[in-house]
Amino acid sequence: MNTIGHLFRLTTFGESHGPAIGGIIDGCPSQLKLDFDFIESELLRRKTAQSSISSQRKESDHIEWLSGLLDGVTLGTPIAFMVRNEDCKPEDYETLKDVYRPSHADFTYEKKYGLRDWRGGGRASARTTLPIVVAGAMAKQVLKGQGIQVFAEVTSIGDMEQARKEGDTVGGIVECRIVGVPAGWGEPMFGKFSAELAHAMFSLPAVKGFEVGDGFALANMKGFEANDTFINKDGQITTLTNHSGGIQGGISNGNDIVFRVAFKPIPSVAQSQQTVNRAGEACEIAIEGRHDVCALPRAVVLVEALAAIVTLDEMLLSV
Amino acid sequence: MNTIGHLFRLTTFGESHGPAIGGIIDGCPSQLKLDFDFIESELLRRKTAQSSISSQRKESDHIEWLSGLLDGVTLGTPIAFMVRNEDCKPEDYETLKDVYRPSHADFTYEKKYGLRDWRGGGRASARTTLPIVVAGAMAKQVLKGQGIQVFAEVTSIGDMEQARKEGDTVGGIVECRIVGVPAGWGEPMFGKFSAELAHAMFSLPAVKGFEVGDGFALANMKGFEANDTFINKDGQITTLTNHSGGIQGGISNGNDIVFRVAFKPIPSVAQSQQTVNRAGEACEIAIEGRHDVCALPRAVVLVEALAAIVTLDEMLLSV
Amino acid sequence: MNTIGHLFRLTTFGESHGPAIGGIIDGCPSQLKLDFDFIESELLRRKTAQSSISSQRKESDHIEWLSGLLDGVTLGTPIAFMVRNEDCKPEDYETLKDVYRPSHADFTYEKKYGLRDWRGGGRASARTTLPIVVAGAMAKQVLKGQGIQVFAEVTSIGDMEQARKEGDTVGGIVECRIVGVPAGWGEPMFGKFSAELAHAMFSLPAVKGFEVGDGFALANMKGFEANDTFINKDGQITTLTNHSGGIQGGISNGNDIVFRVAFKPIPSVAQSQQTVNRAGEACEIAIEGRHDVCALPRAVVLVEALAAIVTLDEMLLSV
Amino acid sequence: MNTIGHLFRLTTFGESHGPAIGGIIDGCPSQLKLDFDFIESELLRRKTAQSSISSQRKESDHIEWLSGLLDGVTLGTPIAFMVRNEDCKPEDYETLKDVYRPSHADFTYEKKYGLRDWRGGGRASARTTLPIVVAGAMAKQVLKGQGIQVFAEVTSIGDMEQARKEGDTVGGIVECRIVGVPAGWGEPMFGKFSAELAHAMFSLPAVKGFEVGDGFALANMKGFEANDTFINKDGQITTLTNHSGGIQGGISNGNDIVFRVAFKPIPSVAQSQQTVNRAGEACEIAIEGRHDVCALPRAVVLVEALAAIVTLDEMLLSV
Repeated sequence: MNTIGHLFRLTTFGESHGPAIGGIIDGCPSQLKLDFDFIESELLRRKTAQSSISSQRKESDHIEWLSGLLDGVTLGTPIAFMVRNEDCKPEDYETLKDVYRPSHADFTYEKKYGLRDWRGGGRASARTTLPIVVAGAMAKQVLKGQGIQVFAEVTSIGDMEQARKEGDTVGGIVECRIVGVPAGWGEPMFGKFSAELAHAMFSLPAVKGFEVGDGFALANMKGFEANDTFINKDGQITTLTNHSGGIQGGISNGNDIVFRVAFKPIPSVAQSQQTVNRAGEACEIAIEGRHDVCALPRAVVLVEALAAIVTLDEMLLSV
Repeated sequence: MNTIGHLFRLTTFGESHGPAIGGIIDGCPSQLKLDFDFIESELLRRKTAQSSISSQRKESDHIEWLSGLLDGVTLGTPIAFMVRNEDCKPEDYETLKDVYRPSHADFTYEKKYGLRDWRGGGRASARTTLPIVVAGAMAKQVLKGQGIQVFAEVTSIGDMEQARKEGDTVGGIVECRIVGVPAGWGEPMFGKFSAELAHAMFSLPAVKGFEVGDGFALANMKGFEANDTFINKDGQITTLTNHSGGIQGGISNGNDIVFRVAFKPIPSVAQSQQTVNRAGEACEIAIEGRHDVCALPRAVVLVEALAAIVTLDEMLLSV
Repeated sequence: MNTIGHLFRLTTFGESHGPAIGGIIDGCPSQLKLDFDFIESELLRRKTAQSSISSQRKESDHIEWLSGLLDGVTLGTPIAFMVRNEDCKPEDYETLKDVYRPSHADFTYEKKYGLRDWRGGGRASARTTLPIVVAGAMAKQVLKGQGIQVFAEVTSIGDMEQARKEGDTVGGIVECRIVGVPAGWGEPMFGKFSAELAHAMFSLPAVKGFEVGDGFALANMKGFEANDTFINKDGQITTLTNHSGGIQGGISNGNDIVFRVAFKPIPSVAQSQQTVNRAGEACEIAIEGRHDVCALPRAVVLVEALAAIVTLDEMLLSV
Repeated sequence: MNTIGHLFRLTTFGESHGPAIGGIIDGCPSQLKLDFDFIESELLRRKTAQSSISSQRKESDHIEWLSGLLDGVTLGTPIAFMVRNEDCKPEDYETLKDVYRPSHADFTYEKKYGLRDWRGGGRASARTTLPIVVAGAMAKQVLKGQGIQVFAEVTSIGDMEQARKEGDTVGGIVECRIVGVPAGWGEPMFGKFSAELAHAMFSLPAVKGFEVGDGFALANMKGFEANDTFINKDGQITTLTNHSGGIQGGISNGNDIVFRVAFKPIPSVAQSQQTVNRAGEACEIAIEGRHDVCALPRAVVLVEALAAIVTLDEMLLSV
């Protein structure tokens, strides 16, 4: 369950303060000259986004490539990579060892596994999304060769400056657009393109909502206005409007695939909060450590990466 | 891709006007005395909902059980079942044979497969969701034995009477609550409980949005107010509020699992619409046939069914 | 676990004396005009083989096609089919209800599921292999369009006439050859072409051995003699000998894929045997009913069918 | 396709002369105090076996644990590990860059992927089986806690001393016994315990045959002699003989699970051989480098490891 994808598959590993995080990409087309600069630039997008806001952890995020490449060209065999965890300060978290932070995964991990890695959130840390960026960059490169591109942006976000002052955090919405997908990709019943995207996006920490096209707004429309009229544009059948977000009956219709992802605020607020400890006793915590005010800036590249991973997978399933 | 589930698996088949629709349920626990009356009553919920609004197709929906049972008790082997398609009037659809209905799956199916079953929407017909109700009823029965229940209801819907008069259709929102799930179910990374639910719900026709807990509203909250305070209630750790919708870090926290599903209006409106035909020529259609004004009433039991299927699957993965 | 295949998938259902047996084929290429005569002739190969030896059960084996077809052409959607079980005589098996037949699946099914369908072997009956022949015929038709053919034959078998007289049964070996597979199909690590074939063949009842190329004989050879010399034959690289059976490093090398499957004798012997009943008491049984002296003649078409299913799956994974 | 297992899953990576080899183990039960000494001793069994015969490559085989552990205890999250490739001498292989070694995977990899890592066999090297030993040792530890043990031994092998003198290689047979598996594990149709074992064993390089119980010998027996009589032994139902090898109808019957695996001779012989190069021209090669005379000694621990991996997976699927 640490694997995503059917034919283009990413399996990830790692905890925030363990030795390393990384992944194995299986099913990447062979004979691809990897664009390492692009991968680095994608990682930088994630990192810059992060550091410009608040989290002060220094991560060099140097990728070590472990397999699957010969002179930078993909062999068709699994591509493993890792990033060492540096600047670990588990002592920052010592006080949280026996306390369940509100709306974090501390309690649920412990219920599921009987124990948890309390150092920096362990496997539930946002740091564990780094391998998604790497696989996403690779997927983008393959898709670009097919004329397909993925763009995401923050379309709604709370007031971050004020939140920082208040020791609070904010959430927001990321919108993503996949351009260039031909009509006919996606499986119609339990593997709808929209279902695969939804599944992927809910893999990201803090995601609580997902909608395609006009999404929830469609619930308030009438059929006549919600329908996308088919037109013939220069010999190509397409739709005049795109309420459907490029997916009809679970299959791409050739128009842009458009979706939005809602992120809740990061639960690590500086303000003091009520909670309970492992013994079930009421207590108070004020989370110190190094935390972001908002996950949104970093989420943009993550949303794009997962969208690219899903789209490449659909491509491989369709051709 | 016509299969849902990991350990409790449903594979469905059937087109609206083909010989039959049905499915195979694989992985149902053995030694379960099936409650056929309950299954019938669930099918009736779907049917009554449907007929009370508008669709006049007469479906006896008599289930034939084909395998997996001995004296009504599950053997642990695959349970196959089917319902014959009756009252088929393919001639109703003859005029739609070469025309792409707006916001239907006609165009995308044809792009994907090179042909499509134009009779009543073929595989993309809402009729093909019937097997989900059967498997869902079975899952509910197993879950009930574990003290788990699933309830859905329509929480938002357009004005249906007016829409009918106008030859139009409406959408709406279904909210679902899963009660009794213990803390610790769900996989944390790419198999989050929320991701599995989202994936399942997007399998339903016309679904365009999904949110867990406070969902999109969380995007506008601050962390302090969005967090669910842990409390000790009679020796049991739970949360004071349930903004998270019972899932934290992808894993159930013991509180009710709450989610909402947005349905777009049914695209088959009686009003005349612009579209194109297979030759790419502009044309006009007025969809007659027998159609609902709204999918919502029928969707309630479907949302419950898929929620039950996912929850039983999580249970089998967790124990 | 009643599903075989990755992209071309067969899910089967049915017990020997339940209402029906059948299956769902998911992932069959669309726009294929099914050759129903060929499918019937394949079923006849299985049936004739069977009846000419000994089993007297009359099976009309009339296939009902339930979905996935329009005017006999595949739609790309799941193709469901079934065959009613006729001429059922559960009373023949009444005496076996509480007794474990030696080397049958009675005991193990009961241990696994807590109960079993005692009528004619239930799910463990050889009858449940019929859906494999249907899917295999379909796969053969697709492969034939690619110039690929599958041939199996019995290469070793016990003396059946004598066995019948003695109220005994015999086993034997089936050899299969897949001709026309291009070099480069199969996955090298945990999805080797040979591993997929082995997995498929061990799905058949009574299979106890599988070998590729020279198989077990290779264990006694030296490297120099076991190696297949590469040669250039009319501009095509191939091998002079075929000790490897057409698979090297898990991937097809363009030469014929050759393998053998060992079947144990059918355990239902007419002679009286010692065993125990459900209460653990020693008892004697003489199996009457209607049984074959040997599974081999019927196994030929089954081995071919599974070989075709695996090969088509490899083709879809490779292109 | 570099993943094995359903609930206990191993994904491997690495080429012989790339930076590292390793894997991710997903689904290992949490709260297990890993026995690192045992894992090391298993790796030593593989290594000693190897070096005592012929291969002179020095491999320190030091495992780096990258994730999934806290103080040596499994967290339930993915356990990643790697071993650096040392003492790499790619120049030893430079002459083989454009030549297809007979009965190696050079030609088939190149046909599949369009290129290959020619350094030391790349992904097809026996070195890539090391991660299997690590996962197998972990599986053995879990199984031991359930009273289950796995033992393999070489039961047939060619004359190695003579082969070495002749610059040749030999094959052989490994027999494996899984002791302590309760009755009722395994899936009856396409996931038979025997099918899963066969699939796993054919993952190993050079495997060309697999048989369960009396295997191919059963093809020559009659039913009466081949049947395993059920008996009541101290209140426990078991079988008097074990021709079936502990598996009936695909499900364990409580007796020892016994199987044999046939390995062909290693294709890297020192003698000069005819072959062709990438241009399709006939040429001669004499493989120098560092190679074993026989894979069997090292294969024993690999067969055990895969048997343990499959058995643990069956356990998790059954409880």
